[in-house]
Amino acid sequence: MKVNVTVMLKQGVLDPQGKAIARALHGLGFEGVEDVRAGKLIELDLAETNPDAARAAAEAMAQKLLANSVIESFRVELG
Amino acid sequence: MKVNVTVMLKQGVLDPQGKAIARALHGLGFEGVEDVRAGKLIELDLAETNPDAARAAAEAMAQKLLANSVIESFRVELG
Repeated sequence: MKVNVTVMLKQGVLDPQGKAIARALHGLGFEGVEDVRAGKLIELDLAETNPDAARAAAEAMAQKLLANSVIESFRVELG
Repeated sequence: MKVNVTVMLKQGVLDPQGKAIARALHGLGFEGVEDVRAGKLIELDLAETNPDAARAAAEAMAQKLLANSVIESFRVELG
């Protein structure tokens, strides 16, 4: 089954990619952009069919590989 | 208001980052991973308060800057 893992920088961690996007949007005339945060979305296709087991597996993957827990937080959503 | 723009490679476009993640997960013992697609999540904080106008602005930003329409597709979700 499909599981989406979203990885974002934690609040308070400087996000230069987001800042660069915000600046570029302002340069294109999008004045109403107040803040931008850039993160990653990882779509997993798992053989597991049990939703609870799939969620647990995705959380283990996020903790071990997908997210750097020092600076990033993640959330898991079943697709 | 908050608007999330998700940018993914289109189906059929080779995703080397996703392939690398899948291989790394297999190497860590996560055998049930059948496929991985990696994309970007861009969280916009807009001054606009009208949901329809915010969505339209975010779609314009995605078309002009955030997504490369040749190889990427995007979706906009109000946060």
